[in-house]
Amino acid sequence: MEKRIERVALAYSGGLDTSVAVPWLIEHYGCEVVCVAVDVGQGASELAGIEAKAAAAGAVACHVVDVREELVTDFIWPVLRAGAVYSRKYLLGTSMARPLIAREIVNVARLEGCDALAHGCTGKGNDQVRFELAFGWLAPDLEVIAPWREWAIRGRKDAEAYAIAKGVPVPPKKTSLYSRDRNLWHCSHEGGPLEDAANAPEADLFRITSDPAVAPAEGETVEIGFRAGTPISIDGLEMSPVALLETLNRIGGRNGIGRIDLIEDRVVGLKSRGIYETPGGTLLFAAHSELEQLVLDRGTLELKDDLARKYASLVYEGRWWGTEREALDAFIEVTQRKVTGSVGLRACRGSVSIVSRRSGHALYREELSTFEASDLYDHSDATGFIRLYGLPYRVAGPGSTAEPQAAAAPAAIDPSTVEARADGVRASNLVLR
Amino acid sequence: MEKRIERVALAYSGGLDTSVAVPWLIEHYGCEVVCVAVDVGQGASELAGIEAKAAAAGAVACHVVDVREELVTDFIWPVLRAGAVYSRKYLLGTSMARPLIAREIVNVARLEGCDALAHGCTGKGNDQVRFELAFGWLAPDLEVIAPWREWAIRGRKDAEAYAIAKGVPVPPKKTSLYSRDRNLWHCSHEGGPLEDAANAPEADLFRITSDPAVAPAEGETVEIGFRAGTPISIDGLEMSPVALLETLNRIGGRNGIGRIDLIEDRVVGLKSRGIYETPGGTLLFAAHSELEQLVLDRGTLELKDDLARKYASLVYEGRWWGTEREALDAFIEVTQRKVTGSVGLRACRGSVSIVSRRSGHALYREELSTFEASDLYDHSDATGFIRLYGLPYRVAGPGSTAEPQAAAAPAAIDPSTVEARADGVRASNLVLR
Amino acid sequence: MEKRIERVALAYSGGLDTSVAVPWLIEHYGCEVVCVAVDVGQGASELAGIEAKAAAAGAVACHVVDVREELVTDFIWPVLRAGAVYSRKYLLGTSMARPLIAREIVNVARLEGCDALAHGCTGKGNDQVRFELAFGWLAPDLEVIAPWREWAIRGRKDAEAYAIAKGVPVPPKKTSLYSRDRNLWHCSHEGGPLEDAANAPEADLFRITSDPAVAPAEGETVEIGFRAGTPISIDGLEMSPVALLETLNRIGGRNGIGRIDLIEDRVVGLKSRGIYETPGGTLLFAAHSELEQLVLDRGTLELKDDLARKYASLVYEGRWWGTEREALDAFIEVTQRKVTGSVGLRACRGSVSIVSRRSGHALYREELSTFEASDLYDHSDATGFIRLYGLPYRVAGPGSTAEPQAAAAPAAIDPSTVEARADGVRASNLVLR
Amino acid sequence: MEKRIERVALAYSGGLDTSVAVPWLIEHYGCEVVCVAVDVGQGASELAGIEAKAAAAGAVACHVVDVREELVTDFIWPVLRAGAVYSRKYLLGTSMARPLIAREIVNVARLEGCDALAHGCTGKGNDQVRFELAFGWLAPDLEVIAPWREWAIRGRKDAEAYAIAKGVPVPPKKTSLYSRDRNLWHCSHEGGPLEDAANAPEADLFRITSDPAVAPAEGETVEIGFRAGTPISIDGLEMSPVALLETLNRIGGRNGIGRIDLIEDRVVGLKSRGIYETPGGTLLFAAHSELEQLVLDRGTLELKDDLARKYASLVYEGRWWGTEREALDAFIEVTQRKVTGSVGLRACRGSVSIVSRRSGHALYREELSTFEASDLYDHSDATGFIRLYGLPYRVAGPGSTAEPQAAAAPAAIDPSTVEARADGVRASNLVLR
Repeated sequence: MEKRIERVALAYSGGLDTSVAVPWLIEHYGCEVVCVAVDVGQGASELAGIEAKAAAAGAVACHVVDVREELVTDFIWPVLRAGAVYSRKYLLGTSMARPLIAREIVNVARLEGCDALAHGCTGKGNDQVRFELAFGWLAPDLEVIAPWREWAIRGRKDAEAYAIAKGVPVPPKKTSLYSRDRNLWHCSHEGGPLEDAANAPEADLFRITSDPAVAPAEGETVEIGFRAGTPISIDGLEMSPVALLETLNRIGGRNGIGRIDLIEDRVVGLKSRGIYETPGGTLLFAAHSELEQLVLDRGTLELKDDLARKYASLVYEGRWWGTEREALDAFIEVTQRKVTGSVGLRACRGSVSIVSRRSGHALYREELSTFEASDLYDHSDATGFIRLYGLPYRVAGPGSTAEPQAAAAPAAIDPSTVEARADGVRASNLVLR
Repeated sequence: MEKRIERVALAYSGGLDTSVAVPWLIEHYGCEVVCVAVDVGQGASELAGIEAKAAAAGAVACHVVDVREELVTDFIWPVLRAGAVYSRKYLLGTSMARPLIAREIVNVARLEGCDALAHGCTGKGNDQVRFELAFGWLAPDLEVIAPWREWAIRGRKDAEAYAIAKGVPVPPKKTSLYSRDRNLWHCSHEGGPLEDAANAPEADLFRITSDPAVAPAEGETVEIGFRAGTPISIDGLEMSPVALLETLNRIGGRNGIGRIDLIEDRVVGLKSRGIYETPGGTLLFAAHSELEQLVLDRGTLELKDDLARKYASLVYEGRWWGTEREALDAFIEVTQRKVTGSVGLRACRGSVSIVSRRSGHALYREELSTFEASDLYDHSDATGFIRLYGLPYRVAGPGSTAEPQAAAAPAAIDPSTVEARADGVRASNLVLR
Repeated sequence: MEKRIERVALAYSGGLDTSVAVPWLIEHYGCEVVCVAVDVGQGASELAGIEAKAAAAGAVACHVVDVREELVTDFIWPVLRAGAVYSRKYLLGTSMARPLIAREIVNVARLEGCDALAHGCTGKGNDQVRFELAFGWLAPDLEVIAPWREWAIRGRKDAEAYAIAKGVPVPPKKTSLYSRDRNLWHCSHEGGPLEDAANAPEADLFRITSDPAVAPAEGETVEIGFRAGTPISIDGLEMSPVALLETLNRIGGRNGIGRIDLIEDRVVGLKSRGIYETPGGTLLFAAHSELEQLVLDRGTLELKDDLARKYASLVYEGRWWGTEREALDAFIEVTQRKVTGSVGLRACRGSVSIVSRRSGHALYREELSTFEASDLYDHSDATGFIRLYGLPYRVAGPGSTAEPQAAAAPAAIDPSTVEARADGVRASNLVLR
Repeated sequence: MEKRIERVALAYSGGLDTSVAVPWLIEHYGCEVVCVAVDVGQGASELAGIEAKAAAAGAVACHVVDVREELVTDFIWPVLRAGAVYSRKYLLGTSMARPLIAREIVNVARLEGCDALAHGCTGKGNDQVRFELAFGWLAPDLEVIAPWREWAIRGRKDAEAYAIAKGVPVPPKKTSLYSRDRNLWHCSHEGGPLEDAANAPEADLFRITSDPAVAPAEGETVEIGFRAGTPISIDGLEMSPVALLETLNRIGGRNGIGRIDLIEDRVVGLKSRGIYETPGGTLLFAAHSELEQLVLDRGTLELKDDLARKYASLVYEGRWWGTEREALDAFIEVTQRKVTGSVGLRACRGSVSIVSRRSGHALYREELSTFEASDLYDHSDATGFIRLYGLPYRVAGPGSTAEPQAAAAPAAIDPSTVEARADGVRASNLVLR
């Protein structure tokens, strides 16, 4: 990298890793460092005094940007409407915060006249990919620096030594064995004893959900209201996006909802193991899915479910900013027009059940599902339906006369077997003739 | 239908519906009726004395065929290996029994020299489709009679009156409000108060699972062993397919596992609502999925997951017998070659969690997931990877110089907004210069 | 059907089939008949004097509605932008006209106060499905009558006899053996000698394309301009949609472009055989596809191609009116924003080749494709890319040390074979040591 | 790379690029070089004297391995059976040869006791990915060296200078502007004036196909026979795979069949432009596809077509060796069991048309496609079919009474518009009352 870097905008968390990045960038690039801390709901304690930490590390400025409302409205709700789940279980909590954080870093970089962007992600994770794809889309003219892929620091001890050498205050020793990521949607846990896939997570690992085994027996019932696929109310009370999600996190959390344990495939070709807590999100996914099944026709549901997996891959792999996601969102928006109504859920000791569904757009209609014939459905219609729907099977099957060859008919009865079997069958049966 | 029917093989359950079908077929077609009861694990009480009932109804013969082992081995295990789930939640319990029952009816029809096949399914359901597609594939030369789509009987009262008129013993009044289907895999419930989608199921609806709220707090841990994707052992003890499934049903059942409440889209164009209990199946799906995520590469997993939804549709819609399913099974068989190992599950009060995963074929490797570089993974490789993986985003994005037009860049920063915002941001930030 | 029908709107072509439908509807339903002829470009001769024919057949009114502009703009262009091709080759000419015709019939029915809708499609075709699904979506309150599925008329002879009996003028005997459908987009041919799949079409079958073998050797070059995926100009000259399509039909037609011969799967479960001529459409699909490959990123292209097949099925199967298509169109609209530019084609003796591509949004960039390194691409990036992209293969392959078992490695070399083979190989090789 | 390399197996073509790689490897790694030339049908002139060239360049051995038969049988035929086409048009000629060449290099490396593998692919292409993924799967223990990504040589001039400096004979100056790849299946062309996407290929670019404009007017008819999806005969004469393909190449070539001009997306994130000639392959794809449409049921065809695109991506991207392809091949094998029969094609001046189709397994049946009713199809069945198939549309549409809200109904008629329009419509119509 021959270009001279003058000033770099660094994604800054206040932890040891990004704190040592400040002097390292100054030393290796001879540049100024602007720290950017983005508030996505990681918690007040994480952000407290972060400007002072940045200053102590040598930064020329520190911006703290609160994007919590936007995170919910423009990143979390779209993923919820899409029904996007990665790797069978993962509700994408970390993945969908990254493109927003990256955008804020670019915004500050532009504001501060930076000529480079930096982040503190390691070289084996997904987040480096998510940051750098966003940077490439939004600001391909800015250099990208990833200290963890360049420097010789290889663990906490190295980092502490470097910090001390550079006069940077070392944050109090983390007592936790785990690497965590938390925002308004979820809390993730990786590393330490979790790296052995044969180990269950320790009971004290969890941060935002109770142990289902000891959660209150009475559980809790909650009704979530949606308008055009977007959650708007709890038990009939309209709430702001952040308040609604926080309320559901508390309800889900105290009832042990939303823990998963996952072996996932990272973008960079590795499998990794993580534990995720997504209490409110799990309730929201359940309610939204249920409402869709009430109001969407089958064709739309199936097509949307095909696309949900594409959407999830795209978000997980850092391809948020791009034409694909925008086009998928346009598709989803149309499907959500009638996803208005409410779903009652019961959260109890780790499991969620449906207690009610209501919508003015329901395609499920009680009168259609009864035995009685109606204008819309005549039992005899089924005869013609089945005959044509099944026509290819009558023509193509092993018993078809269309088949001139004595085709091998694996499913059809083999007469010799029948005889043999017949005896057995008859022996235990009543033959009345 | 002008062809004269001489003898018909009737799918027979011993209940009122199929019992009145016997005299009705005799009256309307002047034919003999051969009853066929297929034991798929619906319970001994359902089958007790069924030959006598058939005789009393006027049948010339009654065959009872036990296909329980085959149901598990050749129908349930393939669906499990496929990971097939219909309509987001349904584990296909009824769907996968039908093609086997249909085949047995065809087999008996061949043996007994029948020229027609009959079933007692109603004109609004899926089962008529499943039976008739199977009949069309296996025996397109035999006529198919569906009394419920032909006769004037429109409910239990009509059926009882007809039975009495024909001298057929009327089975004791069902005290249940619900229509149920049970086999080794599951128990389903439909009708009655469930037809109102706003009603939660009554607590006494359930047959094979305990209420999660009152299930034992200590839960239960179970380790399921698989060989090439097929379950073979529980806690290290090899078992026959039927015994294994029954054991898991008991474990899952007493811990409240496997209840779902579903609005589903039937083949015939209606939405319907059902409650399903699949205790052992839910444990098996969880364990199998987990083992796959440990041993299959990402590409194979993703492709398999795409196909799982196709497989589910095909089973649900009665297209079991056909080239598609056979081809999908061939695909799945290859993917399962290394799905050998075991998964420990904890079933507790309705929820299932993973407690261990073990396989000699694990692609998740602890040494790869740590920070340390290795022969297989060098942190610096990520730089090149991200640059090429992200290249299309650098070229196509709104910030790209490739874009000669002043393209609308929705995600990029708008300088005027920035200035406005900047003040706000800076106000709350430390600027150190 | 017990409801009394007062007045029916009939899709009317002026041919024998729909002409006999008029007196038949009057006779069997005691209703008035309003004929609706929709001009989709079937040709002036088809529509000449159609009002008089309708009157002579007994209709109380005849509406002729010209929807040619709308057909191109709102039905053909969306299918083109979608890139929708059914059954590998079919450009959906008949399929996409039907929902528009159906809508016009509904519109006239509303205007004329009709209580029923009728069409003259046969009971084995797709068009009955397309009409009736559109009717069901737009006007589920109106009855639908399909005379060909009700009456005893079974061929031209029957129809003529009925017409004579009812005093309806019999149209001059069709000399053609074929059943045809023509509109602005295409001309299709079915029936007669084409029903034998072993027969090639006769040379005189074709109506709008020349025989490629005898088309002019010099061919013709044409440049088609697009704005946001929609064709707007030919050789730089902006044209109305109808004029543009007609111009391309002439150019393609005289150069033998756009003939296909197809065995297709109808909605109703049959395979059928048809010949299609789509001269202008074939040029448009080629040009549009080429422009997309120039300006769309790979992810968007692949996702769009997945959806193109869904779009085609939906149009073919008559599901035009519905949420699915609307949602897909929203997706496609986003993808087309940059599909602006022009493509030069050479049409010569049945084949189309690309002679130029131009767009201000091209992602193909000459400077990227050369050997030289650039800011965007450094050769050494490929090393890291390949190492991570290929990581799962190094871990999962038969040669991996991750595999503790002596796994069967079908692709890997078998040492015994090697030795055997080695001799052979070496025998013909130079070994220099 | 610290490991000491003793002996490297180099993929060797005899051209300048791989010839300079020999001394470069010796100089930089201090190792011995074993050249491996794999005969995939690139032509005798390419291979003539190649051992001597290798010796002159400094190699210790040169193996020439003829894999032509295997290329066709185990690589080309599977892709043909899969119907795999990449990027809408590309028949994968280069892509499918690479995994076989890579395997041969590994085989020779094992035989010769090499500890490293090398290839001469550039850092911007797909072939480096294909080679290295294959190497990683088959021989993850061997080092991989890619000189073009390491050395300073940046073009022909540099390479010549290096060759001269090292005493390696410089091959006669290439007069061609293009970079080409040829094997039994195809010939590709890239580079030079083709890099400008606005340039059509020069007439003298092509190597194995005639100009369609001047090909014989009479064209040529050929009947290709298949057994279980594999081509076995031409005009009834059984042939070896290589002879069959060569014969079709000649027939297709002299009739101008199989030229394409493509902007494609490379694995490494770039778009590139290429011209491909695949004369025999184009005939084979057309014939095979046609036979499938005759004998496969619609569900199988659609599922297979979904997977064809996955198969193509996998082959293009170098993921040949792996579980996914093996699983897909198992799927395809089942679908091909009945793809036995023959298809007659007419190749004339660049276009291919179908002249006949014959199979004992045809599902297209002339008697089903006529008007007459039959045991298999009763016209009246269509009524019930359409009513149930269309039921969701009657329930969900804008005209449905199910919809309590005055829902926006974009497609439905707006009464005010109707009135306005009605006048216009009526003015041009006959109203008879």
